[in-house]
Amino acid sequence: MPGVPKEMKAMFTRDVLPHVKQQTGGAVILSRTLHTFGLGESAIAEKLGDLMRRDRNPSVGTTVSGGVVSLRVNARFASADEATRRLRATEDACRAALGDLIYGQNGQALQDVVGAMLADQCKTVATAESCTGGLVAKMLTDVPGSSRYVRQGWVTYSNESKTESLGVSAATIQQHGAVSEQVVGAMAEGARTRARADYALAISGVAGPDGGTPAKPVGTVCIALAHAHGTVARTFNFPGDREWVRDRSAKMALTMLRYHLLGAPMPF
Amino acid sequence: MPGVPKEMKAMFTRDVLPHVKQQTGGAVILSRTLHTFGLGESAIAEKLGDLMRRDRNPSVGTTVSGGVVSLRVNARFASADEATRRLRATEDACRAALGDLIYGQNGQALQDVVGAMLADQCKTVATAESCTGGLVAKMLTDVPGSSRYVRQGWVTYSNESKTESLGVSAATIQQHGAVSEQVVGAMAEGARTRARADYALAISGVAGPDGGTPAKPVGTVCIALAHAHGTVARTFNFPGDREWVRDRSAKMALTMLRYHLLGAPMPF
Repeated sequence: MPGVPKEMKAMFTRDVLPHVKQQTGGAVILSRTLHTFGLGESAIAEKLGDLMRRDRNPSVGTTVSGGVVSLRVNARFASADEATRRLRATEDACRAALGDLIYGQNGQALQDVVGAMLADQCKTVATAESCTGGLVAKMLTDVPGSSRYVRQGWVTYSNESKTESLGVSAATIQQHGAVSEQVVGAMAEGARTRARADYALAISGVAGPDGGTPAKPVGTVCIALAHAHGTVARTFNFPGDREWVRDRSAKMALTMLRYHLLGAPMPF
Repeated sequence: MPGVPKEMKAMFTRDVLPHVKQQTGGAVILSRTLHTFGLGESAIAEKLGDLMRRDRNPSVGTTVSGGVVSLRVNARFASADEATRRLRATEDACRAALGDLIYGQNGQALQDVVGAMLADQCKTVATAESCTGGLVAKMLTDVPGSSRYVRQGWVTYSNESKTESLGVSAATIQQHGAVSEQVVGAMAEGARTRARADYALAISGVAGPDGGTPAKPVGTVCIALAHAHGTVARTFNFPGDREWVRDRSAKMALTMLRYHLLGAPMPF
Protein backbone atom coordinates (compact mmCIF):
# COMPACT_ATOMS: atom_id res chain seq x y z
CA MET A 1 0.00 0.00 0.00
CA PRO A 2 1.29 3.50 -0.78
CA GLY A 3 2.25 5.76 2.15
CA VAL A 4 0.27 8.79 1.00
CA PRO A 5 -3.02 8.60 2.99
CA LYS A 6 -5.24 9.69 0.11
CA GLU A 7 -3.78 7.12 -2.29
CA MET A 8 -3.78 4.43 0.38
CA LYS A 9 -7.46 4.96 1.18
CA ALA A 10 -8.49 4.91 -2.48
CA MET A 11 -6.51 1.74 -3.17
CA PHE A 12 -7.74 0.05 0.01
CA THR A 13 -11.39 0.80 -0.74
CA ARG A 14 -11.16 -0.25 -4.39
CA ASP A 15 -8.75 -3.16 -4.33
CA VAL A 16 -8.31 -4.55 -0.82
CA LEU A 17 -11.69 -4.30 0.86
CA PRO A 18 -13.59 -6.46 -1.71
CA HIS A 19 -11.08 -9.29 -1.14
CA VAL A 20 -11.42 -8.97 2.62
CA LYS A 21 -15.22 -9.07 2.36
CA GLN A 22 -15.06 -12.20 0.24
CA GLN A 23 -12.76 -13.94 2.73
CA THR A 24 -14.97 -13.23 5.73
CA GLY A 25 -18.05 -14.73 4.03
CA GLY A 26 -20.01 -11.55 4.78
CA ALA A 27 -19.22 -11.48 8.50
CA VAL A 28 -18.98 -7.98 9.93
CA ILE A 29 -16.98 -6.39 12.74
CA LEU A 30 -18.35 -3.15 14.15
CA SER A 31 -16.55 -1.16 16.82
CA ARG A 32 -17.20 1.68 19.17
CA THR A 33 -14.91 3.41 21.63
CA LEU A 34 -16.19 5.02 24.85
CA HIS A 35 -14.00 7.36 26.89
CA THR A 36 -13.72 7.91 30.66
CA PHE A 37 -11.49 10.13 32.75
CA GLY A 38 -10.87 10.18 36.48
CA LEU A 39 -10.71 6.54 37.53
CA GLY A 40 -7.90 4.09 36.82
CA GLU A 41 -8.11 1.15 34.43
CA SER A 42 -8.60 -1.43 37.21
CA ALA A 43 -11.45 0.54 38.82
CA ILE A 44 -13.17 0.77 35.44
CA ALA A 45 -12.61 -2.95 34.81
CA GLU A 46 -14.13 -3.76 38.19
CA LYS A 47 -17.26 -1.78 37.39
CA LEU A 48 -17.57 -3.50 34.00
CA GLY A 49 -17.27 -6.96 35.57
CA ASP A 50 -18.46 -9.77 33.26
CA LEU A 51 -18.73 -7.38 30.31
CA MET A 52 -14.96 -7.76 29.98
CA ARG A 53 -15.00 -11.58 29.84
CA ARG A 54 -12.57 -12.67 27.15
CA ASP A 55 -14.98 -15.04 25.41
CA ARG A 56 -17.73 -12.44 25.18
CA ASN A 57 -19.06 -11.22 21.80
CA PRO A 58 -19.28 -8.25 21.51
CA SER A 59 -15.97 -8.00 23.37
CA VAL A 60 -15.12 -5.11 25.70
CA GLY A 61 -11.48 -4.16 26.27
CA THR A 62 -9.81 -1.16 27.86
CA THR A 63 -6.85 0.98 26.80
CA VAL A 64 -5.26 3.96 28.54
CA SER A 65 -3.79 7.02 26.88
CA GLY A 66 -3.08 10.35 28.53
CA GLY A 67 -5.02 9.30 31.62
CA VAL A 68 -8.11 8.61 29.53
CA VAL A 69 -9.37 5.05 30.05
CA SER A 70 -11.19 4.00 26.89
CA LEU A 71 -13.50 1.05 26.32
CA ARG A 72 -13.27 -0.62 22.95
CA VAL A 73 -16.38 -2.60 22.05
CA ASN A 74 -16.00 -4.99 19.10
CA ALA A 75 -19.01 -6.84 17.71
CA ARG A 76 -18.32 -9.65 15.24
CA PHE A 77 -21.41 -11.20 13.70
CA ALA A 78 -22.64 -12.78 10.49
CA SER A 79 -24.63 -9.73 9.38
CA ALA A 80 -24.33 -5.97 9.73
CA ASP A 81 -27.82 -5.86 11.23
CA GLU A 82 -27.01 -8.26 14.00
CA ALA A 83 -23.63 -6.62 14.67
CA THR A 84 -25.30 -3.20 14.94
CA ARG A 85 -27.98 -4.48 17.30
CA ARG A 86 -25.59 -6.40 19.56
CA LEU A 87 -23.05 -3.55 19.60
CA ARG A 88 -25.80 -1.19 20.74
CA ALA A 89 -26.88 -3.59 23.51
CA THR A 90 -23.33 -3.94 24.84
CA GLU A 91 -22.77 -0.18 24.66
CA ASP A 92 -25.95 0.31 26.69
CA ALA A 93 -24.69 -2.21 29.26
CA CYS A 94 -21.35 -0.36 29.51
CA ARG A 95 -23.15 2.94 29.96
CA ALA A 96 -25.37 1.41 32.65
CA ALA A 97 -22.28 0.15 34.49
CA LEU A 98 -20.29 3.40 34.24
CA GLY A 99 -22.95 6.13 34.04
CA ASP A 100 -21.53 9.65 33.86
CA LEU A 101 -17.98 8.33 33.95
CA ILE A 102 -18.29 7.97 30.17
CA TYR A 103 -17.77 11.45 28.79
CA GLY A 104 -17.70 10.74 25.09
CA GLN A 105 -17.09 8.31 22.27
CA ASN A 106 -14.87 7.65 19.27
CA GLY A 107 -12.93 10.83 18.37
CA GLN A 108 -14.38 13.04 21.11
CA ALA A 109 -12.05 14.79 23.57
CA LEU A 110 -13.07 16.23 26.93
CA GLN A 111 -12.88 19.76 25.52
CA ASP A 112 -15.26 18.84 22.68
CA VAL A 113 -17.84 17.54 25.15
CA VAL A 114 -17.48 20.35 27.69
CA GLY A 115 -17.53 22.90 24.87
CA ALA A 116 -20.74 21.47 23.44
CA MET A 117 -22.35 21.55 26.90
CA LEU A 118 -21.34 25.19 27.41
CA ALA A 119 -22.66 26.13 23.96
CA ASP A 120 -25.94 24.22 24.56
CA GLN A 121 -26.47 25.91 27.91
CA CYS A 122 -25.35 29.34 26.55
CA LYS A 123 -22.72 29.59 29.27
CA THR A 124 -19.23 31.08 29.16
CA VAL A 125 -15.97 30.16 30.84
CA ALA A 126 -12.75 31.84 31.91
CA THR A 127 -9.46 30.30 33.03
CA ALA A 128 -6.77 31.22 35.54
CA GLU A 129 -3.73 28.98 35.35
CA SER A 130 -0.52 28.74 37.24
CA CYS A 131 1.27 25.38 36.81
CA THR A 132 -0.62 24.41 33.64
CA GLY A 133 0.57 27.65 32.03
CA GLY A 134 -2.26 28.06 29.54
CA LEU A 135 -2.96 24.38 28.79
CA VAL A 136 -6.62 24.51 29.86
CA ALA A 137 -7.22 27.59 27.70
CA LYS A 138 -5.36 25.91 24.83
CA MET A 139 -7.51 22.77 25.15
CA LEU A 140 -10.76 24.73 25.34
CA THR A 141 -9.78 26.71 22.22
CA ASP A 142 -8.77 23.53 20.35
CA VAL A 143 -12.43 23.35 19.47
CA PRO A 144 -13.63 25.28 16.40
CA GLY A 145 -16.26 27.82 17.43
CA SER A 146 -15.00 27.98 21.02
CA SER A 147 -15.09 31.79 20.80
CA ARG A 148 -18.80 31.40 21.64
CA TYR A 149 -18.01 30.31 25.18
CA VAL A 150 -14.35 31.05 25.97
CA ARG A 151 -14.33 34.53 27.48
CA GLN A 152 -10.78 35.02 28.63
CA GLY A 153 -7.80 33.33 30.21
CA TRP A 154 -4.97 34.35 32.51
CA VAL A 155 -1.64 32.66 32.96
CA THR A 156 -0.55 33.87 36.36
CA TYR A 157 2.70 32.11 36.95
CA SER A 158 4.06 34.50 39.59
CA ASN A 159 2.47 35.42 42.92
CA GLU A 160 2.42 39.11 41.95
CA SER A 161 0.45 38.38 38.80
CA LYS A 162 -2.12 36.42 40.84
CA THR A 163 -2.57 39.49 42.98
CA GLU A 164 -2.38 42.16 40.30
CA SER A 165 -4.43 40.50 37.58
CA LEU A 166 -6.86 38.38 39.56
CA GLY A 167 -7.09 40.20 42.88
CA VAL A 168 -5.85 37.29 45.02
CA SER A 169 -4.83 38.87 48.31
CA ALA A 170 -1.13 38.70 49.10
CA ALA A 171 -2.09 37.70 52.64
CA THR A 172 -3.95 34.63 51.37
CA ILE A 173 -0.90 33.57 49.33
CA GLN A 174 1.35 34.25 52.31
CA GLN A 175 -0.83 32.31 54.74
CA HIS A 176 -1.77 29.27 52.66
CA GLY A 177 0.85 29.16 49.90
CA ALA A 178 0.33 29.60 46.14
CA VAL A 179 -0.65 25.93 45.89
CA SER A 180 -3.72 25.90 48.13
CA GLU A 181 -7.46 25.60 47.79
CA GLN A 182 -7.80 29.13 49.17
CA VAL A 183 -5.60 30.61 46.45
CA VAL A 184 -7.13 28.70 43.53
CA GLY A 185 -10.56 29.58 44.86
CA ALA A 186 -9.63 33.27 44.85
CA MET A 187 -8.04 32.93 41.39
CA ALA A 188 -11.21 31.37 40.00
CA GLU A 189 -13.42 34.04 41.57
CA GLY A 190 -11.14 36.82 40.31
CA ALA A 191 -11.14 35.40 36.78
CA ARG A 192 -14.90 34.84 36.75
CA THR A 193 -15.65 38.40 37.86
CA ARG A 194 -13.10 40.09 35.61
CA ALA A 195 -14.09 38.10 32.53
CA ARG A 196 -17.81 38.39 33.36
CA ALA A 197 -18.04 34.66 32.67
CA ASP A 198 -20.52 32.14 34.04
CA TYR A 199 -17.73 29.81 35.11
CA ALA A 200 -14.04 30.04 35.84
CA LEU A 201 -11.50 27.26 36.29
CA ALA A 202 -8.28 27.88 38.23
CA ILE A 203 -5.25 25.65 38.71
CA SER A 204 -2.18 25.96 40.90
CA GLY A 205 0.15 23.07 41.59
CA VAL A 206 3.61 21.63 41.82
CA ALA A 207 4.28 20.29 38.30
CA GLY A 208 7.92 19.49 39.04
CA PRO A 209 10.59 18.42 38.63
CA ASP A 210 11.52 20.91 41.38
CA GLY A 211 9.46 22.84 43.90
CA GLY A 212 8.08 19.91 45.88
CA THR A 213 8.01 19.86 49.69
CA PRO A 214 7.11 17.06 52.13
CA ALA A 215 3.71 18.68 52.67
CA LYS A 216 3.16 19.47 48.96
CA PRO A 217 5.20 17.01 46.88
CA VAL A 218 5.50 17.17 43.09
CA GLY A 219 2.10 16.27 41.67
CA THR A 220 0.10 18.22 44.27
CA VAL A 221 -2.41 20.30 42.33
CA CYS A 222 -5.30 22.45 43.55
CA ILE A 223 -8.18 23.07 41.15
CA ALA A 224 -11.14 25.39 41.66
CA LEU A 225 -14.37 26.01 39.82
CA ALA A 226 -16.20 29.28 40.45
CA HIS A 227 -19.85 29.56 39.45
CA ALA A 228 -22.79 31.85 40.13
CA HIS A 229 -23.61 30.19 43.44
CA GLY A 230 -20.17 29.59 44.91
CA THR A 231 -16.74 28.12 44.45
CA VAL A 232 -15.52 24.57 44.89
CA ALA A 233 -11.85 23.72 45.28
CA ARG A 234 -10.15 20.32 45.41
CA THR A 235 -6.62 19.05 45.93
CA PHE A 236 -5.28 16.20 43.79
CA ASN A 237 -2.07 14.20 43.73
CA PHE A 238 -1.15 13.28 40.17
CA PRO A 239 1.63 10.79 39.43
CA GLY A 240 4.22 11.14 36.68
CA ASP A 241 6.49 13.82 35.29
CA ARG A 242 5.87 17.50 34.58
CA GLU A 243 4.07 16.85 31.30
CA TRP A 244 1.82 14.21 32.90
CA VAL A 245 0.98 16.36 35.91
CA ARG A 246 0.06 19.32 33.70
CA ASP A 247 -2.00 17.17 31.33
CA ARG A 248 -3.92 15.40 34.11
CA SER A 249 -4.52 18.72 35.91
CA ALA A 250 -6.04 20.30 32.81
CA LYS A 251 -8.23 17.26 32.14
CA MET A 252 -9.37 17.15 35.77
CA ALA A 253 -10.32 20.85 35.62
CA LEU A 254 -12.43 20.19 32.51
CA THR A 255 -13.93 17.18 34.28
CA MET A 256 -14.93 19.29 37.31
CA LEU A 257 -16.70 21.69 34.96
CA ARG A 258 -18.30 18.79 33.09
CA TYR A 259 -19.81 17.31 36.27
CA HIS A 260 -21.03 20.74 37.32
CA LEU A 261 -22.70 21.24 33.93
CA LEU A 262 -24.25 17.77 34.26
CA GLY A 263 -25.58 18.75 37.69
CA ALA A 264 -24.02 15.58 39.09
CA PRO A 265 -21.53 15.04 41.92
CA MET A 266 -18.02 14.01 40.87
CA PRO A 267 -17.61 10.33 41.84
CA PHE A 268 -13.91 10.58 42.74
CA MET B 1 12.11 -8.06 23.12
CA PRO B 2 9.68 -7.27 25.96
CA GLY B 3 7.37 -4.26 25.55
CA VAL B 4 8.11 -2.70 28.94
CA PRO B 5 10.74 -0.01 28.18
CA LYS B 6 12.82 -0.67 31.28
CA GLU B 7 13.03 -4.42 30.63
CA MET B 8 13.61 -3.87 26.91
CA LYS B 9 16.55 -1.52 27.55
CA ALA B 10 18.18 -3.86 30.04
CA MET B 11 17.82 -6.85 27.74
CA PHE B 12 19.00 -4.91 24.68
CA THR B 13 22.11 -3.63 26.45
CA ARG B 14 23.02 -6.98 27.96
CA ASP B 15 22.04 -9.47 25.27
CA VAL B 16 21.54 -7.78 21.91
CA LEU B 17 24.17 -5.05 21.70
CA PRO B 18 27.22 -7.36 22.14
CA HIS B 19 26.02 -9.46 19.17
CA VAL B 20 25.49 -6.36 17.05
CA LYS B 21 28.96 -5.08 17.91
CA GLN B 22 30.48 -8.41 16.92
CA GLN B 23 28.67 -8.40 13.58
CA THR B 24 29.82 -4.91 12.63
CA GLY B 25 33.47 -5.76 13.22
CA GLY B 26 33.85 -2.71 15.45
CA ALA B 27 32.38 -0.22 12.94
CA VAL B 28 30.50 2.60 14.57
CA ILE B 29 27.52 4.74 13.56
CA LEU B 30 27.17 8.08 15.33
CA SER B 31 24.24 10.40 14.75
CA ARG B 32 23.23 13.94 15.47
CA THR B 33 20.00 15.78 14.71
CA LEU B 34 19.88 19.54 14.09
CA HIS B 35 16.58 21.44 14.08
CA THR B 36 15.39 24.41 12.01
CA PHE B 37 12.10 26.27 11.88
CA GLY B 38 10.81 28.82 9.40
CA LEU B 39 11.90 27.56 6.00
CA GLY B 40 10.50 24.59 4.10
CA GLU B 41 12.33 21.31 3.49
CA SER B 42 13.26 22.18 -0.10
CA ALA B 43 14.71 25.56 0.85
CA ILE B 44 16.83 23.88 3.54
CA ALA B 45 17.95 21.19 1.07
CA GLU B 46 18.96 23.86 -1.42
CA LYS B 47 21.13 25.59 1.17
CA LEU B 48 22.75 22.29 2.14
CA GLY B 49 23.57 21.45 -1.50
CA ASP B 50 26.20 18.72 -1.86
CA LEU B 51 26.08 17.93 1.86
CA MET B 52 22.90 15.96 1.06
CA ARG B 53 24.50 13.81 -1.66
CA ARG B 54 23.27 10.25 -1.19
CA ASP B 55 26.73 8.66 -1.38
CA ARG B 56 28.18 10.99 1.23
CA ASN B 57 29.55 9.68 4.56
CA PRO B 58 28.62 11.17 6.97
CA SER B 59 25.20 11.35 5.34
CA VAL B 60 22.82 14.27 5.84
CA GLY B 61 19.07 13.75 5.47
CA THR B 62 16.06 15.88 6.35
CA THR B 63 12.76 15.06 8.05
CA VAL B 64 9.80 17.31 8.83
CA SER B 65 7.58 17.15 11.89
CA GLY B 66 5.29 19.89 13.15
CA GLY B 67 6.85 22.40 10.76
CA VAL B 68 10.30 21.70 12.18
CA VAL B 69 12.75 20.67 9.46
CA SER B 70 15.41 18.49 11.06
CA LEU B 71 18.77 17.41 9.67
CA ARG B 72 19.89 13.92 10.57
CA VAL B 73 23.65 13.44 10.28
CA ASN B 74 24.83 9.82 10.32
CA ALA B 75 28.55 9.00 10.42
CA ARG B 76 29.53 5.37 9.80
CA PHE B 77 33.23 4.64 10.25
CA ALA B 78 35.59 1.89 11.37
CA SER B 79 36.37 3.51 14.72
CA ALA B 80 34.53 5.66 17.24
CA ASP B 81 37.30 8.25 17.04
CA GLU B 82 37.00 8.69 13.32
CA ALA B 83 33.19 8.71 13.45
CA THR B 84 33.26 11.42 16.13
CA ARG B 85 35.72 13.55 14.18
CA ARG B 86 33.91 13.23 10.86
CA LEU B 87 30.48 13.78 12.44
CA ARG B 88 31.77 17.00 13.98
CA ALA B 89 33.16 18.20 10.64
CA THR B 90 29.87 17.56 8.83
CA GLU B 91 27.91 19.22 11.61
CA ASP B 92 30.16 22.28 11.27
CA ALA B 93 29.55 22.31 7.53
CA CYS B 94 25.76 22.16 8.08
CA ARG B 95 25.96 24.99 10.59
CA ALA B 96 28.05 27.04 8.15
CA ALA B 97 25.43 26.48 5.44
CA LEU B 98 22.40 27.27 7.61
CA GLY B 99 23.70 29.64 10.28
CA ASP B 100 21.07 30.84 12.74
CA LEU B 101 18.39 28.78 11.02
CA ILE B 102 19.56 25.92 13.25
CA TYR B 103 17.97 26.56 16.62
CA GLY B 104 18.90 23.40 18.47
CA GLN B 105 19.89 19.76 18.36
CA ASN B 106 18.73 16.28 19.36
CA GLY B 107 15.91 16.57 21.94
CA GLN B 108 15.77 20.37 22.09
CA ALA B 109 12.52 22.20 21.35
CA LEU B 110 12.21 25.89 20.45
CA GLN B 111 10.89 26.68 23.93
CA ASP B 112 13.94 25.02 25.54
CA VAL B 113 16.31 27.17 23.49
CA VAL B 114 14.37 30.42 23.87
CA GLY B 115 13.94 29.73 27.59
CA ALA B 116 17.66 29.18 28.07
CA MET B 117 18.42 32.43 26.21
CA LEU B 118 15.95 34.37 28.37
CA ALA B 119 17.43 32.85 31.53
CA ASP B 120 21.00 33.56 30.38
CA GLN B 121 20.17 37.16 29.57
CA CYS B 122 18.06 37.59 32.77
CA LYS B 123 15.08 38.68 30.69
CA THR B 124 11.37 38.02 31.20
CA VAL B 125 8.50 37.46 28.81
CA ALA B 126 4.72 37.88 28.76
CA THR B 127 2.18 36.56 26.26
CA ALA B 128 -1.09 37.84 24.80
CA GLU B 129 -2.88 35.28 22.69
CA SER B 130 -6.03 35.26 20.68
CA CYS B 131 -6.21 32.42 18.12
CA THR B 132 -3.52 30.30 19.80
CA GLY B 133 -5.57 30.39 23.01
CA GLY B 134 -2.70 29.89 25.46
CA LEU B 135 -0.48 27.62 23.37
CA VAL B 136 2.54 29.95 23.46
CA ALA B 137 2.29 30.25 27.25
CA LYS B 138 1.83 26.49 27.50
CA MET B 139 4.94 25.87 25.37
CA LEU B 140 7.05 28.37 27.35
CA THR B 141 5.97 26.74 30.62
CA ASP B 142 6.68 23.23 29.28
CA VAL B 143 10.22 23.94 30.41
CA PRO B 144 11.12 23.19 34.06
CA GLY B 145 12.27 26.37 35.78
CA SER B 146 10.39 28.62 33.35
CA SER B 147 8.98 30.56 36.29
CA ARG B 148 12.30 32.46 36.20
CA TYR B 149 11.35 34.18 32.95
CA VAL B 150 7.62 33.69 32.29
CA ARG B 151 5.92 36.69 33.88
CA GLN B 152 2.33 36.40 32.83
CA GLY B 153 0.03 35.46 30.00
CA TRP B 154 -3.35 36.58 28.73
CA VAL B 155 -5.75 34.67 26.55
CA THR B 156 -7.88 37.41 25.05
CA TYR B 157 -10.20 35.60 22.73
CA SER B 158 -12.87 38.30 22.55
CA ASN B 159 -12.46 41.90 21.40
CA GLU B 160 -13.68 43.20 24.75
CA SER B 161 -11.03 41.27 26.62
CA LYS B 162 -8.34 42.72 24.35
CA THR B 163 -9.57 46.16 25.32
CA GLU B 164 -10.28 45.56 29.00
CA SER B 165 -7.26 43.46 29.91
CA LEU B 166 -4.62 44.73 27.53
CA GLY B 167 -5.76 48.27 26.78
CA VAL B 168 -6.14 47.78 23.02
CA SER B 169 -8.32 50.66 21.88
CA ALA B 170 -11.71 49.69 20.54
CA ALA B 171 -11.13 52.14 17.69
CA THR B 172 -8.00 50.28 16.59
CA ILE B 173 -9.91 46.99 16.53
CA GLN B 174 -12.79 48.66 14.70
CA GLN B 175 -10.53 50.27 12.12
CA HIS B 176 -8.06 47.46 11.38
CA GLY B 177 -9.85 44.32 12.58
CA ALA B 178 -8.83 41.99 15.41
CA VAL B 179 -6.44 40.20 13.04
CA SER B 180 -4.11 43.08 12.17
CA GLU B 181 -0.55 44.15 12.88
CA GLN B 182 -1.93 47.22 14.67
CA VAL B 183 -3.98 45.12 17.10
CA VAL B 184 -1.28 42.52 17.85
CA GLY B 185 1.20 45.36 18.31
CA ALA B 186 -1.11 46.98 20.87
CA MET B 187 -1.74 43.60 22.53
CA ALA B 188 2.00 43.00 22.89
CA GLU B 189 2.61 46.49 24.28
CA GLY B 190 -0.29 46.14 26.71
CA ALA B 191 0.94 42.77 27.93
CA ARG B 192 4.54 43.95 28.25
CA THR B 193 3.58 46.99 30.31
CA ARG B 194 1.06 45.23 32.53
CA ALA B 195 3.33 42.26 33.22
CA ARG B 196 6.39 44.51 33.63
CA ALA B 197 8.21 42.08 31.34
CA ASP B 198 11.17 42.71 29.07
CA TYR B 199 9.38 41.13 26.13
CA ALA B 200 5.85 40.33 25.12
CA LEU B 201 4.59 38.14 22.29
CA ALA B 202 1.10 38.64 20.88
CA ILE B 203 -0.83 36.57 18.34
CA SER B 204 -4.13 37.13 16.59
CA GLY B 205 -5.19 35.15 13.55
CA VAL B 206 -7.77 33.16 11.68
CA ALA B 207 -7.16 29.58 12.82
CA GLY B 208 -10.26 28.24 11.08
CA PRO B 209 -12.13 26.29 10.02
CA ASP B 210 -14.49 29.31 9.92
CA GLY B 211 -13.91 33.04 10.12
CA GLY B 212 -11.88 33.44 6.93
CA THR B 213 -12.53 36.26 4.45
CA PRO B 214 -11.07 36.91 0.98
CA ALA B 215 -8.76 39.55 2.49
CA LYS B 216 -7.88 37.45 5.54
CA PRO B 217 -8.31 33.78 4.69
CA VAL B 218 -7.92 30.93 7.19
CA GLY B 219 -4.24 30.75 8.10
CA THR B 220 -3.72 34.52 8.24
CA VAL B 221 -1.93 35.22 11.50
CA CYS B 222 -0.45 38.44 12.86
CA ILE B 223 2.36 38.15 15.41
CA ALA B 224 4.00 40.96 17.37
CA LEU B 225 7.00 41.23 19.64
CA ALA B 226 7.20 44.20 22.00
CA HIS B 227 10.56 45.05 23.56
CA ALA B 228 12.14 47.98 25.37
CA HIS B 229 12.90 49.86 22.16
CA GLY B 230 9.81 49.24 20.09
CA THR B 231 7.40 46.74 18.65
CA VAL B 232 7.63 44.64 15.51
CA ALA B 233 4.60 43.01 13.93
CA ARG B 234 4.40 40.61 11.02
CA THR B 235 1.65 38.89 9.07
CA PHE B 236 1.99 35.24 8.07
CA ASN B 237 -0.08 32.82 6.03
CA PHE B 238 0.16 29.33 7.46
CA PRO B 239 -1.20 26.32 5.57
CA GLY B 240 -3.12 23.45 7.11
CA ASP B 241 -5.97 22.95 9.53
CA ARG B 242 -6.77 24.67 12.85
CA GLU B 243 -4.24 22.61 14.81
CA TRP B 244 -1.48 23.27 12.26
CA VAL B 245 -2.17 26.99 12.06
CA ARG B 246 -2.10 27.32 15.85
CA ASP B 247 1.05 25.23 16.20
CA ARG B 248 2.95 27.09 13.45
CA SER B 249 1.82 30.46 14.86
CA ALA B 250 3.15 29.63 18.33
CA LYS B 251 6.45 28.37 16.92
CA MET B 252 6.83 31.44 14.73
CA ALA B 253 6.24 33.72 17.74
CA LEU B 254 8.98 31.91 19.66
CA THR B 255 11.19 32.18 16.57
CA MET B 256 10.66 35.95 16.38
CA LEU B 257 11.74 36.23 20.01
CA ARG B 258 14.69 33.91 19.37
CA TYR B 259 16.03 36.07 16.53
CA HIS B 260 15.56 39.19 18.62
CA LEU B 261 17.51 37.62 21.50
CA LEU B 262 20.22 36.60 19.00
CA GLY B 263 20.36 40.19 17.78
CA ALA B 264 19.95 38.91 14.23
CA PRO B 265 17.39 39.71 11.52
CA MET B 266 14.84 36.97 10.78
CA PRO B 267 15.77 35.55 7.35
CA PHE B 268 12.18 34.86 6.24
